[in-house]
Amino acid sequence: MSVLIDLNSDLGESFGAYRIGDDESLLGVVSSANVACGFHAGDPSVMGRTVRACVEKGVAVGAHPSYPDLQGFGRRNMAMTPDEVYQIMVYQLGALMGFCRANGTELRHVKPHGALYNQAAKDPNLAQAISQAIRDVDKELILLGLAGSAFEEAARQAGIPFAEEAFADRAYNPDGTLVPRSQPGAVIHDPAEAVSRTVEMALNGRVKAVDGSWVQMRPHSICVHGDTREASALASSIAGALSDAGIRIRPLREVLGL
Amino acid sequence: MSVLIDLNSDLGESFGAYRIGDDESLLGVVSSANVACGFHAGDPSVMGRTVRACVEKGVAVGAHPSYPDLQGFGRRNMAMTPDEVYQIMVYQLGALMGFCRANGTELRHVKPHGALYNQAAKDPNLAQAISQAIRDVDKELILLGLAGSAFEEAARQAGIPFAEEAFADRAYNPDGTLVPRSQPGAVIHDPAEAVSRTVEMALNGRVKAVDGSWVQMRPHSICVHGDTREASALASSIAGALSDAGIRIRPLREVLGL
Amino acid sequence: MSVLIDLNSDLGESFGAYRIGDDESLLGVVSSANVACGFHAGDPSVMGRTVRACVEKGVAVGAHPSYPDLQGFGRRNMAMTPDEVYQIMVYQLGALMGFCRANGTELRHVKPHGALYNQAAKDPNLAQAISQAIRDVDKELILLGLAGSAFEEAARQAGIPFAEEAFADRAYNPDGTLVPRSQPGAVIHDPAEAVSRTVEMALNGRVKAVDGSWVQMRPHSICVHGDTREASALASSIAGALSDAGIRIRPLREVLGL
Amino acid sequence: MSVLIDLNSDLGESFGAYRIGDDESLLGVVSSANVACGFHAGDPSVMGRTVRACVEKGVAVGAHPSYPDLQGFGRRNMAMTPDEVYQIMVYQLGALMGFCRANGTELRHVKPHGALYNQAAKDPNLAQAISQAIRDVDKELILLGLAGSAFEEAARQAGIPFAEEAFADRAYNPDGTLVPRSQPGAVIHDPAEAVSRTVEMALNGRVKAVDGSWVQMRPHSICVHGDTREASALASSIAGALSDAGIRIRPLREVLGL
Repeated sequence: MSVLIDLNSDLGESFGAYRIGDDESLLGVVSSANVACGFHAGDPSVMGRTVRACVEKGVAVGAHPSYPDLQGFGRRNMAMTPDEVYQIMVYQLGALMGFCRANGTELRHVKPHGALYNQAAKDPNLAQAISQAIRDVDKELILLGLAGSAFEEAARQAGIPFAEEAFADRAYNPDGTLVPRSQPGAVIHDPAEAVSRTVEMALNGRVKAVDGSWVQMRPHSICVHGDTREASALASSIAGALSDAGIRIRPLREVLGL
Repeated sequence: MSVLIDLNSDLGESFGAYRIGDDESLLGVVSSANVACGFHAGDPSVMGRTVRACVEKGVAVGAHPSYPDLQGFGRRNMAMTPDEVYQIMVYQLGALMGFCRANGTELRHVKPHGALYNQAAKDPNLAQAISQAIRDVDKELILLGLAGSAFEEAARQAGIPFAEEAFADRAYNPDGTLVPRSQPGAVIHDPAEAVSRTVEMALNGRVKAVDGSWVQMRPHSICVHGDTREASALASSIAGALSDAGIRIRPLREVLGL
Repeated sequence: MSVLIDLNSDLGESFGAYRIGDDESLLGVVSSANVACGFHAGDPSVMGRTVRACVEKGVAVGAHPSYPDLQGFGRRNMAMTPDEVYQIMVYQLGALMGFCRANGTELRHVKPHGALYNQAAKDPNLAQAISQAIRDVDKELILLGLAGSAFEEAARQAGIPFAEEAFADRAYNPDGTLVPRSQPGAVIHDPAEAVSRTVEMALNGRVKAVDGSWVQMRPHSICVHGDTREASALASSIAGALSDAGIRIRPLREVLGL
Repeated sequence: MSVLIDLNSDLGESFGAYRIGDDESLLGVVSSANVACGFHAGDPSVMGRTVRACVEKGVAVGAHPSYPDLQGFGRRNMAMTPDEVYQIMVYQLGALMGFCRANGTELRHVKPHGALYNQAAKDPNLAQAISQAIRDVDKELILLGLAGSAFEEAARQAGIPFAEEAFADRAYNPDGTLVPRSQPGAVIHDPAEAVSRTVEMALNGRVKAVDGSWVQMRPHSICVHGDTREASALASSIAGALSDAGIRIRPLREVLGL
């Protein structure tokens, strides 16, 4: 049986007259889209357009909910209570489900965005609020997050499926955490290296950490980007290399066997 | 068989630290709540609280979508295209459905708010965009609007149920339209008169117009308000008078026989 | 020579259809108004109305800038960089100065609001960003803040005047910091006690801390509230008691001798 | 004495992570910048950056205020009352003046944006509200608008200077109004033609209308665009051609002799 892996990327991050991201190109590459829900990016018209495009291209639709911070693109920490986070999760998941229903598809997964992702990965109370919101809206929704983060345990407790993601272009510490962007070498800039690391992750379940040691992992999904032309070209290269290695790119539900 | 009628009111119009409306009192009186969806009023926390309260009180949850205009409370006309209106409808309906799912209930009806209501009542293109959005999200949702408005025909074309509403405290023109608020006598300030008019509407299907003639109507729902203490007291009086007249106050679905 | 002290309060915190605060009553009591600038509360129409009312009542206009967080009323910490804080300060000060110019008055002081106040009081980088923004917009503007906080040193470095404020209804620690609201006894609920403490602060430059010791202070301004009817009644009582004690309530510039 | 003319363009229309417009290139070409004030585009950080860049390049700073509509980029009509428009004008002018003060320069002109420009050009009540706001904030500010529009008369009544603008790349009706964008031929796509028309406007005070007749005009400023690479290239060509024709590109105040 062949190895399956999902490719996920953030989509629908334009807003009004503003354009971000090479969505058209990415939709030909990824199997799962994390669609912005209007809080850090995206507006109702962009969301409608993006979900329709996902349906046309057979890409699974997931939610990419965020703190309410359009100016900061959802990248600034905010001190919201777990209950407030629960409620903005329900709101954003529901809004995107509206577009899924209107386009004859179903919402499949949830990947929190930016500061919400980073804070909740380390804060069990936030991870729990997020997981409970997902469960209460639709307990079949898959929470997509970093392996070993607070998301994993919170998803387990809430009884919702969890999928691990790995990053094609990020350096790892020996303990499996990401090297913070503030440190040198945090991002892998050499496309060839990013491609070969991704194949190694998918095929052999490991990635070389910054100290040369191997980090073991079993990612269900690889996160790729589309904010720049280089990024979407890299995404294509990764997809090609995975195929060449006999790995099939499939949506999360299939990878998880759901 | 006894006469049935629905009582609807706008709820959940608080926002953050700001409070508007006597929701607690109204929830003991009405059978259907038009819940603000965050565009003219309401925020995710208010929405969550409001839907939960509706479930506890057995009040049917409906959406009260609006133009995106918090400062203007959704009361200012905006030149949005029908497609833009379609998309903001899907977004708001979906968001509120998220809270319905999280609280184990279902969204039942939709009543557009303020300027969106008034513009679409007269503009077939907007009424159509609204009706199609409702149909595409859930074709069992009931569109609640003024009888004889563009909503009625648009709902018929979209194949969604339509419910007529009448206003307890508003004066009518002989053709069944409302006397605009800008004209003297537009609002019935005498509670006793508002109560007796409402009973006449519900029981005998008619209301006396400003010229003394009778306007025929078959309202499925009576709209009451809760922005002031007087308003919510009037709502209670109306509910009491309807009961005394042998009219049963029931949610829209039941009134429509769905 | 008689003792002078300023009374300051937050005003203009309504927004659109939403009303907060007993501004009318407070304007008859305070000598300085901290006017919301649209980020946590206030909108352009509210700001225009508020500045005009201040001019009519002879109350000095100050800015009450905040993080951009209407839903959270500016009370939630946000991770904005010092440069971002500098820029939102310039924006909000400028906007309020627009209303001052249009109403023939001048902006006199600045008191950051909520989470921005609390975070900057402890974070020299934020206090510095705030002080530099004030200096760059108008170096005669008075920064109003807690004595001994990071504001004081930052104002000194920026070369702008600093005024100390004290709180009529808050308990103090022996070191002059406020007892956090999360602790029991943080707020003085007995109006008579709040009044007598305020007179003691103004007249004798001291307040009794929670452990019974005296905290020495020389407040230029006493902060009073108007969110509830009780609060604005207390504000009136304090003003009356100060007058009875021979203390004159005057705007900050006069208290500081500028 | 040589002929003087101003070149104006919209700048600072980026927002958060979103980029619009080739500001860097335009700043080397125009003499006046219409800087977005946060309502249709621009945020405090973008405004700070833009005003600083204007100062560095010696470009006069003007305000480009708008309806509050980020999603619609200020291009959707809104039914705001003249008083509401007055207040949002004061707010935005003030905010931008804050950045001018912080950067050691002065605000010089005001050009309303998008739907506000178009609605007020035809509605004397809105034009009056705009002019009065400008006068009340700073009566030396120049209102920049279409010749013969409601702006001109409103500016005269308010006692503020008015400057006429003409458009390099737009077709004119025989009566001097612009051919609406909805009609074919509304935009001049041939750069050479746009350049020669502009020189004709500046030098000979006339432009050929769509019916071949000459429209007389005395524009103080020519509006150029920078949203696309083509647009900013055209702006450069126009500036070059004006110079070659002996016309000097100078800020509005100088052109008006103020």
